[in-house]
Amino acid sequence: MIEQLSQLSALTDLAVEARNMVVERTGGEIEGVALEEEQKDNAKVTRIQVMNEMASQRIGKAPGNYITIESESLRVADKPSHEYLSGILAEELNRLIDYNALKKSPNQEATILVIGLGNWNATPDALGPQVVHHILVTRHLYDSSPADAKQGMRPVCALAPGVLGLTGIETAEIIRGVVDRVHPDLIIAIDALAAKESSRLASTIQISDTGIYPGSGLGKRRIGITQQDMGVPVIAMGIPTVINSVNIVNDTINQLMNQPNIPPQLKTSLQQGNDYQQIIQNILQPFMGDLIVAPKGIDQLIRDTSKVIAGGINVALHPDIRAEDVSLYLQ
Amino acid sequence: MIEQLSQLSALTDLAVEARNMVVERTGGEIEGVALEEEQKDNAKVTRIQVMNEMASQRIGKAPGNYITIESESLRVADKPSHEYLSGILAEELNRLIDYNALKKSPNQEATILVIGLGNWNATPDALGPQVVHHILVTRHLYDSSPADAKQGMRPVCALAPGVLGLTGIETAEIIRGVVDRVHPDLIIAIDALAAKESSRLASTIQISDTGIYPGSGLGKRRIGITQQDMGVPVIAMGIPTVINSVNIVNDTINQLMNQPNIPPQLKTSLQQGNDYQQIIQNILQPFMGDLIVAPKGIDQLIRDTSKVIAGGINVALHPDIRAEDVSLYLQ
Amino acid sequence: MIEQLSQLSALTDLAVEARNMVVERTGGEIEGVALEEEQKDNAKVTRIQVMNEMASQRIGKAPGNYITIESESLRVADKPSHEYLSGILAEELNRLIDYNALKKSPNQEATILVIGLGNWNATPDALGPQVVHHILVTRHLYDSSPADAKQGMRPVCALAPGVLGLTGIETAEIIRGVVDRVHPDLIIAIDALAAKESSRLASTIQISDTGIYPGSGLGKRRIGITQQDMGVPVIAMGIPTVINSVNIVNDTINQLMNQPNIPPQLKTSLQQGNDYQQIIQNILQPFMGDLIVAPKGIDQLIRDTSKVIAGGINVALHPDIRAEDVSLYLQ
Amino acid sequence: MIEQLSQLSALTDLAVEARNMVVERTGGEIEGVALEEEQKDNAKVTRIQVMNEMASQRIGKAPGNYITIESESLRVADKPSHEYLSGILAEELNRLIDYNALKKSPNQEATILVIGLGNWNATPDALGPQVVHHILVTRHLYDSSPADAKQGMRPVCALAPGVLGLTGIETAEIIRGVVDRVHPDLIIAIDALAAKESSRLASTIQISDTGIYPGSGLGKRRIGITQQDMGVPVIAMGIPTVINSVNIVNDTINQLMNQPNIPPQLKTSLQQGNDYQQIIQNILQPFMGDLIVAPKGIDQLIRDTSKVIAGGINVALHPDIRAEDVSLYLQ
Repeated sequence: MIEQLSQLSALTDLAVEARNMVVERTGGEIEGVALEEEQKDNAKVTRIQVMNEMASQRIGKAPGNYITIESESLRVADKPSHEYLSGILAEELNRLIDYNALKKSPNQEATILVIGLGNWNATPDALGPQVVHHILVTRHLYDSSPADAKQGMRPVCALAPGVLGLTGIETAEIIRGVVDRVHPDLIIAIDALAAKESSRLASTIQISDTGIYPGSGLGKRRIGITQQDMGVPVIAMGIPTVINSVNIVNDTINQLMNQPNIPPQLKTSLQQGNDYQQIIQNILQPFMGDLIVAPKGIDQLIRDTSKVIAGGINVALHPDIRAEDVSLYLQ
Repeated sequence: MIEQLSQLSALTDLAVEARNMVVERTGGEIEGVALEEEQKDNAKVTRIQVMNEMASQRIGKAPGNYITIESESLRVADKPSHEYLSGILAEELNRLIDYNALKKSPNQEATILVIGLGNWNATPDALGPQVVHHILVTRHLYDSSPADAKQGMRPVCALAPGVLGLTGIETAEIIRGVVDRVHPDLIIAIDALAAKESSRLASTIQISDTGIYPGSGLGKRRIGITQQDMGVPVIAMGIPTVINSVNIVNDTINQLMNQPNIPPQLKTSLQQGNDYQQIIQNILQPFMGDLIVAPKGIDQLIRDTSKVIAGGINVALHPDIRAEDVSLYLQ
Repeated sequence: MIEQLSQLSALTDLAVEARNMVVERTGGEIEGVALEEEQKDNAKVTRIQVMNEMASQRIGKAPGNYITIESESLRVADKPSHEYLSGILAEELNRLIDYNALKKSPNQEATILVIGLGNWNATPDALGPQVVHHILVTRHLYDSSPADAKQGMRPVCALAPGVLGLTGIETAEIIRGVVDRVHPDLIIAIDALAAKESSRLASTIQISDTGIYPGSGLGKRRIGITQQDMGVPVIAMGIPTVINSVNIVNDTINQLMNQPNIPPQLKTSLQQGNDYQQIIQNILQPFMGDLIVAPKGIDQLIRDTSKVIAGGINVALHPDIRAEDVSLYLQ
Repeated sequence: MIEQLSQLSALTDLAVEARNMVVERTGGEIEGVALEEEQKDNAKVTRIQVMNEMASQRIGKAPGNYITIESESLRVADKPSHEYLSGILAEELNRLIDYNALKKSPNQEATILVIGLGNWNATPDALGPQVVHHILVTRHLYDSSPADAKQGMRPVCALAPGVLGLTGIETAEIIRGVVDRVHPDLIIAIDALAAKESSRLASTIQISDTGIYPGSGLGKRRIGITQQDMGVPVIAMGIPTVINSVNIVNDTINQLMNQPNIPPQLKTSLQQGNDYQQIIQNILQPFMGDLIVAPKGIDQLIRDTSKVIAGGINVALHPDIRAEDVSLYLQ
């Protein structure tokens, strides 16, 4: 199904960008796509709901909820801002999760499996594994903890399964195998994303309840990290760390059109070239298939933003663990 | 069963050391333990067979075959020596594996799953994950490869599952989950080992067909990485990277006894103190439970020796891949 | 001079341990060694002053001030405790530095050069380089900053020069070369230390105004990182990350003597063996010269404690930079 | 002077690309720029000599020799090819160095200082530091080596000084300070380069005898790593690991013009837009100033190609050290 979606979806992993592109093209709201924006101090939260299959086809994103937290301060190594953003992330994450519905019995909190997708050896792709590194893992301690220590603590486990090229195994297969042994009640999967606009790199967090398909590899993925394939709900979460190289050219040409000193013929032909996007894509595909476009400080940005995500997840999943006790449970 | 084995086994992961300790104590060969030694250029190969349950109890190692390759040159960053040792490793590995017996059909080579046990964030424990990093992974390419390219190539996949403290999941559970999806015909599990004598650190490779129990963690391991628990044969492989701190004291006291200028009373009492080993162990346990004793250049030694093991596995599993083509299949 | 100091100094880099050893042996205070202890919440501060050459010879530490901050919580990954310890470190550091006396002119704050000694490729030796990584470097921005931004900010630069084995250059030579170009008014040198007692590993910070000699290497160090050789005052700072393997045996034997069930002859001979320490040292030297004894979680401990030290230095050197603005100056 | 050079030089660090751009524009050879090409098995060597100041101004590269080794196989992780390329690199390096002229006395071989420029924390910029990691450092052993062991071995030292943003010190200042202490007879400086064409990424090595200016930083570099500022000859060496984002747009537009299905008006206006390059550059500068464009597998490429360069340097500088003995001198 994903494969049949609009070409536009290939340009970005962010639902908010996909929606904006369609709106810009068509000049109006999209039927079946609800939008809600909330401006917070220093952060903007956008909640998009793709309500049906037709809307999904229009914007190239699976039906479900997509929450975007945007803040320039995610990019700046400023601890208080990052803790603030972790707090917002925890709140938004908990909007999407009904823990009580997940519980198998009144005495047993829901077990959560956090998955860090991506390749720890490729910097811009290492977001998921680095988040997992900072996750407060408790499942192995949970059963042996005294009842009052368990209060408001949930059994959490975590895995960074690697990528197909490193393991020779479809990532979703590994996860499904682990799910069959661990029987989690919820999966949270983190992955590095691709954005369309460079201004969104390392400044946007997307959370969705639609699941995720790990990096295509050979393009013949039989199973996804989705509720359908995993048998339990899946929350996907990510931060854009690269942009599709096609978008750089597009953006430049768009900016070119807005320049006062641009030769008028060039402007006209660019505006007329309705399908020049497709042309560009065809040209670039073989040429830049193995190039990435990333922020200069990407190594540090991955280290910093992975802590923001892990912090948000830790706070969301263990509501009654006081901040000062968190370290007691860390390996 | 492992738990009931002799206390001696706690002092070393190497069968050759466990056997030597018993022989030194009892002064004779052990019934049910066969020993074969072969001196090669620059390397000594020792093959020990623990033939039955009684012998297993005596030396504290599960019944099966244990091959040790010892060479000082493993410790020296010398490429030609390391390639030579990879060659010996490949040979000895292939002594333990009957690939034809493993094959499910004449047209399908056996699928091998390589597991890198240990914690990639703790240097002396990172051997397994680093070996996996250098393994020639082919399973995802195998089916789509042309028939003649498949000749003498086997479908290999690899996983570094992490440790209980990082994942919250018993390592053997993760592996069993993956086994149930991937259906390998053989598992090769690599782990960093503990030795008794410091001279063996980074100079000995042990290969066995008995399987392995990953680092005890909470001590209530329900399943092991063994044929019994995994349903397929398991080869375990490792290099000692640390020594038990008890052994340092033991070794020093042993050396003390051989000094000419040692006070005679001290010597006598040390020799009489039949159970001083137990005393020392009791004392050290709480005191040094979280200390490791490792070679100074351990970071570099892990990097180097992981390539020796990976090289040996790659050559053993893909016999007809020419050395100069290996890189074509590497990620 | 250092070479002529008591053999005891070889067993520990900590002045507090060296002093305690002498006091234990002689049963009384040492002339010329002043001791001041302050118990704070969750941390104990010990200030030792070695007042003259004779006292220096007795305890094997150069004349000067040694401040030790001891806290079990340094070892625990607990952010609030670590920030608290950074605060104490900043206070104690500022006891040793008279910034006004260092200033070359009233309008120019003292320039500080932070040096991270040690080998970034060898985990327990990587403390210095990792501290440098977290130092707030401002010297290159200082001159171009507006006057009011400079208020309470000092020009700080930092270097991790590597070790002799990696560079082929005496570390002190590299630093002296940089000093001759940069003309700092003060050097702060950080290094991983060796302790005698394992309980001090990663739980003690030592600050001194005596300078430091980087790891001996070939033993023919011509120059040290001292005021004499650098031409400017040098503060040395470190955390013990390893213990001398001799000490493990010593500690065990000491503990042995306190056991109720120890054979009386052994006890007697151990107590009589006045010079068995020397014997042990002679035995172990060739045998364990290339072994290190470190805490199990050393990789993580180095990461965590380097931030405590860097945090303390950053706060001490830039008193008016508000915590929330620190990130604005970080690379 | 560099600052006055043609704008074109900003687009690439490779003299061969700079020369080609001028030739393409002007349609003929450039006076004062000599070109020599040699096709070897699997590698093409281009030697460019910029003979005078006027030629230097034309192509935007300082007067001197520039040797380029181009090979697709540099990009492929194939050990034999990489050793072959190291050999070619050693040969070409030795064309530029007259060791005998460098010697201060007949009995003392020239001392060489290898400098690894760049930031070890930023993947595409880490080439220099990683080369230094693999350099065979001998200076500290040289004097104590027996005379016959010294035969054909040279005293080599190495330093990775970091970048201005990490140290607060101009990189060239650090190096000059070290030069003043160590008195090398030659400097070899390695740095990651920027190319114009993506096909050259990780497939080209440039060696020149012109020195190098480390990453501009604040743009007010007072001194360079040049013979003039260092007082000894400087060989610069590098591999392109990123491309200037301006070039991506240029390349795409150039490819666009060669498409059959491109709208004729667009083609015309692009060809007419003589100064659209400048327009694009103006637009992109603020927009993509902090973006990098790098190959997908950049982490692995840096690891692999740094070994090719270090291998070439090691062989060139120590001609009589047999390959199998190299490891004996390694730390």
